[in-house]
Amino acid sequence: MVYLTRKCEFSAAHYYHNPEFSPEENQRIFGKCNNPNGHGHNYTLEVTVKGAVNPRSGFVVDLKDLKDTLESEVLSALDHRFLNKEVPEFRDRIPTTENLAIVIWERLQPKMKVAQLHRVRVYETPDLFVDCYGEK
Amino acid sequence: MVYLTRKCEFSAAHYYHNPEFSPEENQRIFGKCNNPNGHGHNYTLEVTVKGAVNPRSGFVVDLKDLKDTLESEVLSALDHRFLNKEVPEFRDRIPTTENLAIVIWERLQPKMKVAQLHRVRVYETPDLFVDCYGEK
Amino acid sequence: MVYLTRKCEFSAAHYYHNPEFSPEENQRIFGKCNNPNGHGHNYTLEVTVKGAVNPRSGFVVDLKDLKDTLESEVLSALDHRFLNKEVPEFRDRIPTTENLAIVIWERLQPKMKVAQLHRVRVYETPDLFVDCYGEK
Amino acid sequence: MVYLTRKCEFSAAHYYHNPEFSPEENQRIFGKCNNPNGHGHNYTLEVTVKGAVNPRSGFVVDLKDLKDTLESEVLSALDHRFLNKEVPEFRDRIPTTENLAIVIWERLQPKMKVAQLHRVRVYETPDLFVDCYGEK
Amino acid sequence: MVYLTRKCEFSAAHYYHNPEFSPEENQRIFGKCNNPNGHGHNYTLEVTVKGAVNPRSGFVVDLKDLKDTLESEVLSALDHRFLNKEVPEFRDRIPTTENLAIVIWERLQPKMKVAQLHRVRVYETPDLFVDCYGEK
Amino acid sequence: MVYLTRKCEFSAAHYYHNPEFSPEENQRIFGKCNNPNGHGHNYTLEVTVKGAVNPRSGFVVDLKDLKDTLESEVLSALDHRFLNKEVPEFRDRIPTTENLAIVIWERLQPKMKVAQLHRVRVYETPDLFVDCYGEK
Repeated sequence: MVYLTRKCEFSAAHYYHNPEFSPEENQRIFGKCNNPNGHGHNYTLEVTVKGAVNPRSGFVVDLKDLKDTLESEVLSALDHRFLNKEVPEFRDRIPTTENLAIVIWERLQPKMKVAQLHRVRVYETPDLFVDCYGEK
Repeated sequence: MVYLTRKCEFSAAHYYHNPEFSPEENQRIFGKCNNPNGHGHNYTLEVTVKGAVNPRSGFVVDLKDLKDTLESEVLSALDHRFLNKEVPEFRDRIPTTENLAIVIWERLQPKMKVAQLHRVRVYETPDLFVDCYGEK
Repeated sequence: MVYLTRKCEFSAAHYYHNPEFSPEENQRIFGKCNNPNGHGHNYTLEVTVKGAVNPRSGFVVDLKDLKDTLESEVLSALDHRFLNKEVPEFRDRIPTTENLAIVIWERLQPKMKVAQLHRVRVYETPDLFVDCYGEK
Repeated sequence: MVYLTRKCEFSAAHYYHNPEFSPEENQRIFGKCNNPNGHGHNYTLEVTVKGAVNPRSGFVVDLKDLKDTLESEVLSALDHRFLNKEVPEFRDRIPTTENLAIVIWERLQPKMKVAQLHRVRVYETPDLFVDCYGEK
Repeated sequence: MVYLTRKCEFSAAHYYHNPEFSPEENQRIFGKCNNPNGHGHNYTLEVTVKGAVNPRSGFVVDLKDLKDTLESEVLSALDHRFLNKEVPEFRDRIPTTENLAIVIWERLQPKMKVAQLHRVRVYETPDLFVDCYGEK
Repeated sequence: MVYLTRKCEFSAAHYYHNPEFSPEENQRIFGKCNNPNGHGHNYTLEVTVKGAVNPRSGFVVDLKDLKDTLESEVLSALDHRFLNKEVPEFRDRIPTTENLAIVIWERLQPKMKVAQLHRVRVYETPDLFVDCYGEK
């Protein structure tokens, strides 16, 4: 049983705003991130899968399959996008790093076949990251 | 004579579009970056100043002064902004990494007092950066 | 349930010495780190908190609160200090990376409110780090 | 109870090939990695040990001992080697990152004395790494 | 006039050996790198081009063109290769980092159209790199 | 003609204080760095040499020689030291990053044989570094 992690990157814009909050609350809670024009990040995504090593290939998972799944389920939807405007999950969820990690988990988990999804880590900046293990 | 470099970061959204190009040209030349909703980056900025070491302080430049200048001239204008919409220089210039480096040079160069501005480096991603030395 | 990690840095001096050891033992066990003048490091601290995502803010924890707690409980005490001489916990504990991680855990854990402290990681250099989960 | 991690590096050549596969299967499954001349990597190895902090030294493990064990059990065998040709374990196992992590675990685990081996992490590139905890 | 740098990576095997040296000289001069089975590296390549910013696109160079040139002239020849055996320039030159930088310069320089090649930087490891500016 | 750069690290303590300044000036100019107990850093040193590639070895400089020179001239004097107290050059010079770069240049330049010293770069933190080219 080993854990394999693949890292990739995407660039996206977002802003933080809760229409149920007053303008003052939005400003106090979200600060500079509340700017409605949006700002952006180079997000780094680490996806960890867990499984037994196939004795014939030496692989836990076919890396090309994993890459294709990341591309079709995550990167094509998030890369070079304005998250609030273009990603359905963020119509009613604020696109914080926490929610991004959860959304990516929800998109990837049902598509895993050979190996099991173990962890999704999202870096918003090199100094801030969130891990999701699919725990409730 | 030594060269001191200070690194800092800012997050911004942008997109690439030239109104003089046809939609097809904009798409061909700018690809995913042409999405009008915008996307974003964590930009890393390196500012290099050049000068003699003050024998009393051991400094080329007072780091607090340098930080204040970076804050007032660059970061307050660019950080957590949508470059095309909120930064005057990008009303009629495309906010590429090349133009960002030039704009930051133009903003900083007149404010330097003790030391001389030597180089502005802007990383759009860890794999792409532009250097400006103020050469014509 | 997600895990959010915030990274920050501090610079400190220290040396390793146990007054119960002979000079030879101190030298053999601690090597260059036994130099009583002290030497120093840029420490990198990663603090991980664990909790549910607040559906209204999208946050596990208010980042400004977390930053303030790190500042008041850890950085103000350790940054730009000589650990052996200025930090009470190191009057009778050797300021190894192991003990630094434990001390930081002990300082932060009682101050956590909304989220739970999950892990304290301290890098002494990029090639050496210690994790503390508060396990006995 | 804390976890200490030591990072080191080694450079090695390898290629992927299973003699039980047809040439087409080898090519399809292993792609460019199937080139029999071999190619290579700077591998980064992170070894994590777990244990109580010795109250007299402040250490979980003597770092010099750990370094010597890494050198004699792992680096002397793998560094500047062609893995398929020079490392016995890879005579009949494909030297994937997964199998490298397992082989390093198997080499280190029996040699641990004071502290317990907790995790072996091997980076093949900065974007791909495998963790082994010795789980079956 | 600005300088744009693109970073990419390739993995290759090599060894150092001069048939005009005695075995003892080869061993003394090249050490572990003399192992004829070969070892390998993840090389990082930084290519810097210099030019004026096109006022219509905001680009010094079309990044897709640059990427295609890097792919066809450099990466297709060096990536996942054993340099001594598969790259013609290294039939009679030792594939040191110095010579790699020169060979990459020689391959790229004649293919530059819009912008001028300014510098080729090759990292053999994160701690060792060579710059070539095409100086004689 | 190529430029080869070797990176290495050392850990040291220091503080900033000019006895000709009043306590208030020392505090205002040097801030937290004025703490007389000292604090410390992991310094990263990059040494760049310039020269022709030896056609027989493929090297600009013998890396073992370069490493030995760095060890004997720089690291043995600075690593695990309190710079103000243990390094003669800092008896009457403040150990700023600027002065460290100059002192390392002065120590290395006379010892260079085959290749020429081109640049000394010293990082005090990942966000602050100084380059010295030996210019007056």
